[in-house]
Amino acid sequence: MDTSNSPTEPLEVVIVGGGIIGLVLTVGLLRVGVKVKVYEQAQGFREIGAGIAFTANAIRCMSLIDPAIPTALRSSGSVATSNGGEEDPNDYLRWIDGYDRQREDEPYQQRLLYKLDAGYKGFEGCRRDQFLEALVKIVPPGVIELRKRLETIEDRGKDKKLLLKFRDGTTTEADAGELMWEEVIGCDGVKSRVRQVLLGEDHAASHPRYTHCVAYRTLIPMAKAIEALGPYKAMNQHNHVGPNANLLHYPVANNTMINAVAFVRDPNEWPDDKQTVAQGTRDDVKAAFPGWCPAVQDLIDRFPDTLSKWAIFDLWDYPVPRYNGGRLCLAGDAAHATSPHHGAGACVGVEDALCLSTLMQEVVTETRGNPEVKEQALRAAFTTYDAIRRTRSQWVVNSSRRVCNLHQQREWADSSKLVRAETCFEEIKDRSLKIWHFNYDAMLNETRQGYKQKRAPSNGFVKNMTVY
Amino acid sequence: MDTSNSPTEPLEVVIVGGGIIGLVLTVGLLRVGVKVKVYEQAQGFREIGAGIAFTANAIRCMSLIDPAIPTALRSSGSVATSNGGEEDPNDYLRWIDGYDRQREDEPYQQRLLYKLDAGYKGFEGCRRDQFLEALVKIVPPGVIELRKRLETIEDRGKDKKLLLKFRDGTTTEADAGELMWEEVIGCDGVKSRVRQVLLGEDHAASHPRYTHCVAYRTLIPMAKAIEALGPYKAMNQHNHVGPNANLLHYPVANNTMINAVAFVRDPNEWPDDKQTVAQGTRDDVKAAFPGWCPAVQDLIDRFPDTLSKWAIFDLWDYPVPRYNGGRLCLAGDAAHATSPHHGAGACVGVEDALCLSTLMQEVVTETRGNPEVKEQALRAAFTTYDAIRRTRSQWVVNSSRRVCNLHQQREWADSSKLVRAETCFEEIKDRSLKIWHFNYDAMLNETRQGYKQKRAPSNGFVKNMTVY
Repeated sequence: MDTSNSPTEPLEVVIVGGGIIGLVLTVGLLRVGVKVKVYEQAQGFREIGAGIAFTANAIRCMSLIDPAIPTALRSSGSVATSNGGEEDPNDYLRWIDGYDRQREDEPYQQRLLYKLDAGYKGFEGCRRDQFLEALVKIVPPGVIELRKRLETIEDRGKDKKLLLKFRDGTTTEADAGELMWEEVIGCDGVKSRVRQVLLGEDHAASHPRYTHCVAYRTLIPMAKAIEALGPYKAMNQHNHVGPNANLLHYPVANNTMINAVAFVRDPNEWPDDKQTVAQGTRDDVKAAFPGWCPAVQDLIDRFPDTLSKWAIFDLWDYPVPRYNGGRLCLAGDAAHATSPHHGAGACVGVEDALCLSTLMQEVVTETRGNPEVKEQALRAAFTTYDAIRRTRSQWVVNSSRRVCNLHQQREWADSSKLVRAETCFEEIKDRSLKIWHFNYDAMLNETRQGYKQKRAPSNGFVKNMTVY
Repeated sequence: MDTSNSPTEPLEVVIVGGGIIGLVLTVGLLRVGVKVKVYEQAQGFREIGAGIAFTANAIRCMSLIDPAIPTALRSSGSVATSNGGEEDPNDYLRWIDGYDRQREDEPYQQRLLYKLDAGYKGFEGCRRDQFLEALVKIVPPGVIELRKRLETIEDRGKDKKLLLKFRDGTTTEADAGELMWEEVIGCDGVKSRVRQVLLGEDHAASHPRYTHCVAYRTLIPMAKAIEALGPYKAMNQHNHVGPNANLLHYPVANNTMINAVAFVRDPNEWPDDKQTVAQGTRDDVKAAFPGWCPAVQDLIDRFPDTLSKWAIFDLWDYPVPRYNGGRLCLAGDAAHATSPHHGAGACVGVEDALCLSTLMQEVVTETRGNPEVKEQALRAAFTTYDAIRRTRSQWVVNSSRRVCNLHQQREWADSSKLVRAETCFEEIKDRSLKIWHFNYDAMLNETRQGYKQKRAPSNGFVKNMTVY
């Protein structure tokens, strides 16, 4: 029966979505003694997009969640994105003038606008699918269930479990035990169904919006890339900036290829938010870089005839007002889907997972022997999570849009405005360092303090608000 | 004769402009042993604008320039802008919803959107004219010459002094000694003549541009302010934000009045960049705050019938490409005139003065007994100054524009966008802290190192640039 309650049973949480954040969180919750079930809609673990890079900071967060996670990352073949060699082993981000012809006599010359030191192994990149496979290996058998596309979550009342319904007609209770508290954490990405259930389908934040930027992605053999860019640029990350577009590339696959991404501003609406990937052509890309410098044109000439065109959607227009509600909670892109211009979306999701794992450890500790406070403890945990995480993660969404605007400012094509255009890099630096130098120790202290204050409000927690 | 040179004569510098930055720099240069002459166009020391506030950080920079400067500031009647009292003595910036009616039943209720702790005595405010008078008192007699409006600066060749020509027809040599090196530092404000001489009158940065924002300023007796705002808001700084405008106020004159500034977006061009102050009316202000909450409307009702309307000009559109050139150099608004939305324009100028004083101390030390290196030493000093100061000070110009846009975003009037609008405060916080927590020790280390590297390029200074 539903209403019994055993003090010896563990906390149970359902995670909807078996992507990177879902699985990192799964590992974290299992480690602190929470029973976890993961429901993933796909038939297997196929992440979209060839590669993903994590900052050194995010990898340290992974270590705090469980040292097995960075081990999995490295076993999946992650490598530092730097090619600096022994003399300068640090990773750098480089912004280079993609538009302006600096010298008539040397049309291939491009000016390095800014170089930002990301530190030793500042980024480590891997193939998404390989990292996911490595993560699956550190999750015990039976935790992950595939082909489960969530339809609804039914709240049947205070002392009853949540009922999850899936599109294939099956239903499941969130845990097998009886009268245990159940939670659902949505890690189901930009088009999160859990978010829709939490906010209602009519809520503006239930539907991500078009950023009016598309990304054309392709891989180019290194020899061809060197023909266009020369060896130094081809072997190192560069972001070519210019009016209404930017072209980012970096070496992958042990320097045998470069990954090239052309981000292009699009004034039009995207026709179908269900279908956000279309086929593009090299001619489309060429048309988006009119008058750019010869190196950029030559590189685009080496793009394949057809390639994927990704419409970038995010939650900038309508941010999620709260990351928790009832027994539901959101993490990763489900909470704060961002455009990719900081390369930080997954990193911020890892921070979420660290915060949630820490909170659930507090709940496990407090409710051990005191199962009657489980509900209040869980509510305190998720309210604290929302308070700790929402501001920073929504800042990243805003900031990613902002740096895209700076990368693609029209001033790059106006020689009278170049001095101003270049002043943008102080801001880009600050924004990047805020992501890279995240003080996760401070976050964890605030997390534990916030939880304890909510659990013992009479013990020293005074809400010092001015009444207006 | 012009070409003699005595090793015992001090360095000599002309400062054009006897405003706050010009006089702070004067005190700093005198302290390190430079002979200074100040030419000010006005008949006396009348700074525009009633009040000015300095951050605690800027006051610490003043102390490093000369402890007599903060003493002068405090002797001029500066007070902390906080009214927190003993329980909470820190200064805060407060952003409050000026537009949205939160509750129909309590139309005067306004939501506090964000509160930012500026620390103990985070700001100290004073009357500009009184601070200037106090600064004049610590400058020796004969240094400052009034009624000298600069017309041109004539460079008569390498071994000759600069010739300054003034509008009244008089000319002067930059120093009275012969064959001394002469420098001119322009501290002559947003409409700097030295900047025009340095860049040429046709240069875009020679002419500040309209920010499309006007400021209406007035003082209101405290009793009237309390009628509109209630005692708490009236007695503490508040920034009421809303669509296309914001209304800032804080107590002055020992809490007997509030200083109220209405910033209003203006889509039109400003007719005359020579005449940037006009007369406005209360009705103009009222028209700029349509539909705002009753407290704001009531406060504007207490504005005088007519009041000053300031067109805000800055150097955002066309930043100065270099702060030095030949024997000329720019500091303060002359280098980086900013809009006032961070309240940081003068603070950044104080940082300039600290950097320049430090560099001139290096030059004085190096050239003592080695007068033959004076020219190279001065060139190294001003090139270092440009490298150290330009990025940060131009960032402030950009950032001030940016926070104005955030204060005045139209989303404040769109209830469906309020969640997003409020995400702006994380960015406003970061920008404010970057100003308030400036690491002047690091700046001074970089300043001294930069100078030494330029003076001894073979001793360890390798320019590590990638060739493209």
